[in-house]
Amino acid sequence: MPPPNPDWVTKLTPSGPQGSELLERERAKSNLPVDKLADFLFTKEALDRRQKILEILQSEQIFDKSQNYFAGRVDRVKTALSRAKRLTQLRNKHGWTDDDYLVANELIIREQGGPEQHKLFLEKAERYEIIGCYAQTELGHGSNVRGLETQAIWNPEDKTFIIRSPHLTASKWWIGTLGRTANHAAVMAQLIINGKPYGPHPFIVPIRDPKTHEPLPNVHVGDIGPKFGYNTMDNGFLLFNDVKIPHANMLSRFSGVDPNTSKYIRPSSPSLIYGTLTYIRTTIVLQSGSTLARGVTIATRYCCVRRQFQDNDAPPTERGENQVLNYTMVQMRLLPLLAATFALHFTGKGMLELYQQNQKRMSKDAVPAGTTKRGAGPEELNPGADLLADLHATSCGLKALASTTAVEGLEVCRRACGGHGYSSFSGIGTWYADYLPTVTWEGDNYMLTQQVARYLLKSARSVLANKAPNNDTTRILKNYLARQDMGAALDVLGSDAELVDAFAWRAAFLTFEALKHRDEEKRPWNSLLVDFYRLSTAHSQYLVVKSFYDALESPETKSSLDEPTIDILRKLYRLHSLNTLEREASEFFVSAATTIRQIQLARKSVMNLLEEIRPHAVKLVDTWKFPDWQLDSSLGRYDGKVYEDMFHRASQNNPLNDLIFDVNPNSERLILKDLSERKDLKSKL
Amino acid sequence: MPPPNPDWVTKLTPSGPQGSELLERERAKSNLPVDKLADFLFTKEALDRRQKILEILQSEQIFDKSQNYFAGRVDRVKTALSRAKRLTQLRNKHGWTDDDYLVANELIIREQGGPEQHKLFLEKAERYEIIGCYAQTELGHGSNVRGLETQAIWNPEDKTFIIRSPHLTASKWWIGTLGRTANHAAVMAQLIINGKPYGPHPFIVPIRDPKTHEPLPNVHVGDIGPKFGYNTMDNGFLLFNDVKIPHANMLSRFSGVDPNTSKYIRPSSPSLIYGTLTYIRTTIVLQSGSTLARGVTIATRYCCVRRQFQDNDAPPTERGENQVLNYTMVQMRLLPLLAATFALHFTGKGMLELYQQNQKRMSKDAVPAGTTKRGAGPEELNPGADLLADLHATSCGLKALASTTAVEGLEVCRRACGGHGYSSFSGIGTWYADYLPTVTWEGDNYMLTQQVARYLLKSARSVLANKAPNNDTTRILKNYLARQDMGAALDVLGSDAELVDAFAWRAAFLTFEALKHRDEEKRPWNSLLVDFYRLSTAHSQYLVVKSFYDALESPETKSSLDEPTIDILRKLYRLHSLNTLEREASEFFVSAATTIRQIQLARKSVMNLLEEIRPHAVKLVDTWKFPDWQLDSSLGRYDGKVYEDMFHRASQNNPLNDLIFDVNPNSERLILKDLSERKDLKSKL
Repeated sequence: MPPPNPDWVTKLTPSGPQGSELLERERAKSNLPVDKLADFLFTKEALDRRQKILEILQSEQIFDKSQNYFAGRVDRVKTALSRAKRLTQLRNKHGWTDDDYLVANELIIREQGGPEQHKLFLEKAERYEIIGCYAQTELGHGSNVRGLETQAIWNPEDKTFIIRSPHLTASKWWIGTLGRTANHAAVMAQLIINGKPYGPHPFIVPIRDPKTHEPLPNVHVGDIGPKFGYNTMDNGFLLFNDVKIPHANMLSRFSGVDPNTSKYIRPSSPSLIYGTLTYIRTTIVLQSGSTLARGVTIATRYCCVRRQFQDNDAPPTERGENQVLNYTMVQMRLLPLLAATFALHFTGKGMLELYQQNQKRMSKDAVPAGTTKRGAGPEELNPGADLLADLHATSCGLKALASTTAVEGLEVCRRACGGHGYSSFSGIGTWYADYLPTVTWEGDNYMLTQQVARYLLKSARSVLANKAPNNDTTRILKNYLARQDMGAALDVLGSDAELVDAFAWRAAFLTFEALKHRDEEKRPWNSLLVDFYRLSTAHSQYLVVKSFYDALESPETKSSLDEPTIDILRKLYRLHSLNTLEREASEFFVSAATTIRQIQLARKSVMNLLEEIRPHAVKLVDTWKFPDWQLDSSLGRYDGKVYEDMFHRASQNNPLNDLIFDVNPNSERLILKDLSERKDLKSKL
Repeated sequence: MPPPNPDWVTKLTPSGPQGSELLERERAKSNLPVDKLADFLFTKEALDRRQKILEILQSEQIFDKSQNYFAGRVDRVKTALSRAKRLTQLRNKHGWTDDDYLVANELIIREQGGPEQHKLFLEKAERYEIIGCYAQTELGHGSNVRGLETQAIWNPEDKTFIIRSPHLTASKWWIGTLGRTANHAAVMAQLIINGKPYGPHPFIVPIRDPKTHEPLPNVHVGDIGPKFGYNTMDNGFLLFNDVKIPHANMLSRFSGVDPNTSKYIRPSSPSLIYGTLTYIRTTIVLQSGSTLARGVTIATRYCCVRRQFQDNDAPPTERGENQVLNYTMVQMRLLPLLAATFALHFTGKGMLELYQQNQKRMSKDAVPAGTTKRGAGPEELNPGADLLADLHATSCGLKALASTTAVEGLEVCRRACGGHGYSSFSGIGTWYADYLPTVTWEGDNYMLTQQVARYLLKSARSVLANKAPNNDTTRILKNYLARQDMGAALDVLGSDAELVDAFAWRAAFLTFEALKHRDEEKRPWNSLLVDFYRLSTAHSQYLVVKSFYDALESPETKSSLDEPTIDILRKLYRLHSLNTLEREASEFFVSAATTIRQIQLARKSVMNLLEEIRPHAVKLVDTWKFPDWQLDSSLGRYDGKVYEDMFHRASQNNPLNDLIFDVNPNSERLILKDLSERKDLKSKL
């Protein structure tokens, strides 16, 4: 480690009002009951659990974060693996539930991320024998599962499957924990019986020797290399040269091969698969709120500590340098994102409740495998299917909107921190880069919007044919049809409820426009993709606005929170909705959901709301209750000691400062002195 | 290095039509004369120079790029410094000019980036004694130079300055090459004479011993730690404990202290400083086009090689998997960016010409230091000042718009590559992360828009008072005023010239709206920052559209290019302008520059233009002439061998694949086997 700071440096303090004073003042000027609101949003149980686990992790040397931002990739993977091992030990020692384990993982920045492999790692961890991974994506094929090239050829003679990679593009790619960690893979492969393809199915294939951990014969496996983020994860590649696996290794929950007749057993109940996908996407929506909230917490606190320029219109007595959050341009960037964190949180919660209700209803009517008639769609299977279809489409659109909002919002937060946002010590950059794949995985955000549009078109056709099921989507389409010859005149500035209606009106308008292009004008699907994307976005924005509104109107909210607190939340609701309306103004113009004048005045309302929310900003981010240890950010410290922390990390932890270089271009020598060699403090794992 | 691929793997090829075939077909179906257009855009001399330097660099082992994406930060800094040294040697050996040297630097991904330190490093490199850096920014102060805390206290007794860091926040921060490399710093410090402050001035301070390269006494200096990108650069911190420097070390080109009387000598000719800033921003605008073009080149080529899903509306014979660039949603993301690369290139070229013309005119009338009267503004100094003021404001707005367009466009390109865009081998991520500070440095993009708005308001007042100088800004304001009682009815779809006029109309409309808020309604400056941001953006968008249009109408273009080529450029002009108009539709609605119907129909025109430009996409990106060696991208290879290259880099270069881990959670051991130890191939610098 670098030499210590000299005495005269350790005596220096930041100039002017200290960061800690500034944040204290912020907290003093708002009456928001932070703890009460936090308990309402996240439940006291969940917050207590996190605190308990936090204390355990902080007491373990292996989870020390001080070198996280400095290490190169190989060292980071090593640390991540050591931590994963220790986490398993702690789990056994403390008898953690799966939920406890996930909380622990979140606190150490998702060292071994991704929902699917968590599950596999966990399930078999008791025996420490099987570490699995889910191997679907290939070098040449991402979202399009039907295009996968890996083959599983049924061999009736010895009742085995032969797993084969016929081309280089068949190589599995991006598979989490496959690179260096997993010893088994659930491989999605094209099932081939008697020369005939039956589409992709999952097969369990052992890939590494359980003792030596070396690849098994005819298996070529490794890490795919560095990435934009998420570099603690060993995403892997995998090729097979005709590897034999027994019949039992085909995962046959939904379909299979009869080992005696070599006949294919058809899949049933695809709605259960829909259910899993819907659940994963719902989780992404729920997490998008807290993902974004990390960035908003850091940027909001720092913009209250950071001061720059004077406000020349202010009275001379207040002409010290101004806190950056007092500038309206900074408010305009950060406060709508603060509002979005709550909007997304309520949306995710609402979706999860709907999903759980529906799962209960469906499990009563579940159909056992192999008993349904061929080609039965989800609608015909059971009474909950209509609702599930709606929930599935909704979850596609919301996953796309919510993860895009979180990703782009995080980058806005990083830039709102000015130059220091670029330092790793801001804590936003790494978090952003690690979260980024979420816009691509579990359905690419652009691809998903096609599914939403397809569903909305289908719903619109059913409404026109008077055969529509009852759900919220058909409700807004029917409302629109009933009034289309009258038009709308919704009072978006005077009524919170009509603001929701205006978003519904625009979504319905765009649905019928798209239907006209497709069904009447017979335009090709491909020519409408941009329209579909905008339609899906509009519909999802409606759902978020509606969820936020419904949450504030619910009896539970009114009984849990006092009126001044609800009033602040209501302002966040308006800020979120009116700011969205203003950004999408041209579609509100064209659909004529409200008057041109109100759309123009929305900007003014937004500016007023910024001013009203500003005093509560720090307490609102405090409500998210991120421990400093989790944020790992100089700029976002709860106590405001921003500059002290930046300086400490740079001067005391930074291994580059161990080296003194020979800068003379004519000298072949590069290092004049290596200060680290004088010490025996170098950390070894 | 990892074990070699087994034989059965080396025999595998990608499935379906090969990438090389697909790109060949793309190039066959367009008649665009790539070389001719490239010569027109960049000049044959510049392209030849790059080729010559490329060949020299490629032949040197030190510039081998195969480990660039894998190394940790300390190794990357070491490599960067070795390369910088070698580059200096090559420069002397081949007698490179400064321009040659900059070209070389660009080719190796700006290992020692930033315009200012290039210059310092270069200028003194002949003597190898002084390596300078420019130390302005402090831990507590970025853009606000007046708020800098470092002090330079004049000591009349021994005619020296005492350099002092009074607080921790006074620490210099972010200073390029300061961390480990520089031995002198040009320090911006508050000049204090006899207890009275005279504002920030530059002082040359030696900071490291020229022999041992260790910090001098009472100087605390080091690297500030890892960043989101640009990690080859040793940005540094710097604190002074009353360091004495002689009188001569004050840089006194524009002002100074008389050593005998201790009187302050006032600065003169601030317009020359304006000129330097304007030049730097002009360079950023010009580079933004090629910066974005790298990403567009990579994404466009890959989206022609990558195939996904079938187009179900296509005739059955064409139902193979579709090239991704055939999907309109992908076109809508990439082709407007392709158009933007050309728009920004022509804008930067136009600005540079204007700047050079004006510099010539001004140098004739330059005023020697100390001869002007106190408080003289730039306008009073010489006849070119009016034009310079216009150019300065223009350069602020365009720097903000152009760098934001490039940064955000690069991220769109990365995501358009799907999952593989996240791999470092895409070549976009690192490039994006390294370019990102450009939106913050040389004037934060949000701060700059205030300068533009201030200038536009001033121009509007001068027009209203009939005292306006003649320049393009006052011209469009006058035009607007002349017609404000009639309104506009510009034919944006039928006339390329009126499309420019519509952008001018909107910018002028927003200027007078802002003026009304400020001068009539007396609204505080802070309440108008969001309006100012939008105003600056609108004005800069007008300038880009106008520059593109003017370039296509110039006699030089018509004599250099044939009509079919100009026609393709004209389509790019329309795509850029109409797509911008559509994205900003609500401001065109409100300013009523054209009809509502035309704004709605702009979307349709954009879709048609995408279809017309699509066949030329690959040849258009080829025109930018990036060598593969520079792009360093698997996805963007000229020959389309995308998958072979991805696989090779992952399996053959990746040091993580040297390690076999012990994954048993109960084992304390982490590494089972280290394959790299079996070899003596480890690269040492």
